[in-house]
Amino acid sequence: MTVGTLAATEAAIASVTPGKGLLTIEWRGGGADPFHYVWLRDNCPCPECLHPSGQRLLDFLDLPADAAPRKVTLGEDGALLIRWDPDAHESRYPADWLRRHAYGPETRAARRRKPVLWDARLKPLPEAGWRAVATDAAAERRWLGALLDHGFALLNQVPAKPGMVAEVGDHIGIVRTTNYGRIFDVISKPDPNNLAYTALALGVHTDNPYRDPTPGYQLLHCLLAEAPGGDTLLVDGFAAAERMRAEDPHGFELLARVPRPFRFADAASDLRAHFPVIGLDAEGEVAEIHFNNRSAAPLDIQAELVEPYMEAYRRFARILARPELTLVLRLAPGDLIVMENGRALHGRSGFDPNAGARHLQGCYVDKDGVESRHRVLSRSGA
Amino acid sequence: MTVGTLAATEAAIASVTPGKGLLTIEWRGGGADPFHYVWLRDNCPCPECLHPSGQRLLDFLDLPADAAPRKVTLGEDGALLIRWDPDAHESRYPADWLRRHAYGPETRAARRRKPVLWDARLKPLPEAGWRAVATDAAAERRWLGALLDHGFALLNQVPAKPGMVAEVGDHIGIVRTTNYGRIFDVISKPDPNNLAYTALALGVHTDNPYRDPTPGYQLLHCLLAEAPGGDTLLVDGFAAAERMRAEDPHGFELLARVPRPFRFADAASDLRAHFPVIGLDAEGEVAEIHFNNRSAAPLDIQAELVEPYMEAYRRFARILARPELTLVLRLAPGDLIVMENGRALHGRSGFDPNAGARHLQGCYVDKDGVESRHRVLSRSGA
Repeated sequence: MTVGTLAATEAAIASVTPGKGLLTIEWRGGGADPFHYVWLRDNCPCPECLHPSGQRLLDFLDLPADAAPRKVTLGEDGALLIRWDPDAHESRYPADWLRRHAYGPETRAARRRKPVLWDARLKPLPEAGWRAVATDAAAERRWLGALLDHGFALLNQVPAKPGMVAEVGDHIGIVRTTNYGRIFDVISKPDPNNLAYTALALGVHTDNPYRDPTPGYQLLHCLLAEAPGGDTLLVDGFAAAERMRAEDPHGFELLARVPRPFRFADAASDLRAHFPVIGLDAEGEVAEIHFNNRSAAPLDIQAELVEPYMEAYRRFARILARPELTLVLRLAPGDLIVMENGRALHGRSGFDPNAGARHLQGCYVDKDGVESRHRVLSRSGA
Repeated sequence: MTVGTLAATEAAIASVTPGKGLLTIEWRGGGADPFHYVWLRDNCPCPECLHPSGQRLLDFLDLPADAAPRKVTLGEDGALLIRWDPDAHESRYPADWLRRHAYGPETRAARRRKPVLWDARLKPLPEAGWRAVATDAAAERRWLGALLDHGFALLNQVPAKPGMVAEVGDHIGIVRTTNYGRIFDVISKPDPNNLAYTALALGVHTDNPYRDPTPGYQLLHCLLAEAPGGDTLLVDGFAAAERMRAEDPHGFELLARVPRPFRFADAASDLRAHFPVIGLDAEGEVAEIHFNNRSAAPLDIQAELVEPYMEAYRRFARILARPELTLVLRLAPGDLIVMENGRALHGRSGFDPNAGARHLQGCYVDKDGVESRHRVLSRSGA
């Protein structure tokens, strides 16, 4: 549901052709975009219409519904100038601004941020040193860009001290506290309230699908890794979903259309939510995966869909288990992995807690802050 | 996307009729529900299949896809007992558990939590004293139930001291920190970075629609209300959306299907997200409103939809502005209002900051924690 960063462009208007209900702008670099009068009037950037914070000052309902241009000209600086009927309001739209907000089909398609799909062979890994990311805006922007493209990225040489994971979380975004606390320890412990706290192998999954909102990013920081086993497994859920779409379009459609319930309960919490396993955006692109074998609650869907749904679910689970899709990482103390929780599904191989200690610390960070930070760093030209 | 609390039931099985691929249970109190074998095998609650935390221990892929019952019986305690082919696994399903998870059409429909729609005439208001909610589990459960039903609820006699709003937030859920901080002050101040910090009237709106995830609940705590004006306006967005559905089904469909962009930017942040103005769940019920005149970014939708979309948007904006839908509240110091941000749209009348001080403090709380708390309190029979 989020939108990519709009690239800065040097736009110049070649011509403006007024038509019925809209005008068409041809760009000097080629291409053309329509702009409806009702849209232009709605988006007048003058100080009367737009607050310096970028928020609208005029109530939409106070705008004339029948706005039509009395006069359309090009300014000396190449901006589009419109004087409106019926209220003689004057608007000035810089060419760059128009280009960035144009909504012709090619322009919209070109603006979409495309995920970089990956599988077990991904090389090089998206990674950077923590010191560089923490101190150099350009390095941080590049690393955040890699995270947004791949749905995960690694940081090396993050001081292996408890609590550090939240410090990183609050640097790249804002840590979200949950019923597990601000930070959680992934460590084998007695009487666990969650399977993550055992030494069992865990298939790849989305964290906390029983939570609405589901965490946007998960950070895991390795403090100790002495036990054999316990490797980190990573699968690009978007790539897996595209396999599903290609191999079983009907099953894909079921998993995308029909939400299923997830649940987690302990003494203090009872978390429940419904999500489709494959979440699509309005354009039909895969936007968010909710897959978690452990937290899947009993299916609560139309009775006639139960058998075909289970069949589709089984197929998708098999795709997610394919070795050729599974990136295997061995985290060493000081390594920290950031995962887009609805995309980079993660798991681990089993380990023997008696053969050595294994200790990770984790936290959740929402999407808004991470994406905002990437845009702000891009804005400054870093 | 969240699911209601399942009511405790005293279920008893009258008969079990095995069929092809499923069995049908008739209940003693009337009604019948189908249970597919593949569903029953998937949800075996024995300690081998289910961890005490309620999480599944078996990988779904390790379950036989061709599970079929070898023997179906009723236990002396009324539970359903199944011995499975091909692996001779034995499952025991308590009647209550089956009833709570049954998915026949009537049963599913009866389980849905229905919002209680309201308008300007709502009486009595959903409200309670803070002391009762803070100290009496039954009072808190009732108040939370009213909040979930109406999408807003009031607390009275909350000590009018700074920071108290976050204390209440962390009592009923978990406060989410954003770029505005853990708490924000709504107070007229010079050089505002957001219109909320001015004395202007604000039409009813969803807070932070440019943020994904959008805040689930907003809390506003009145510390000072000396200025004339500055009344709180509240509209049930779900009720307004149902008016829209009835009066302009085509426009409703456009607002529900086509996401629109929202944006907020200042020196440190650049927040952007797309949401449909009227968000529907998989059953077509209104689930979440994103309406905010100030934060609406230039429409970025298919060119041929721009004019009909703007027309639909205008109609919905007019419905939201209807006095008969607008509840007007005058918050006094010590009053605290909790609003489901995607449902109870809020605004305020303008005020004169020179005629007296007005100071509210706010914070955001996610949905998961509030709903979980209501379920846990309901579980204990409070």
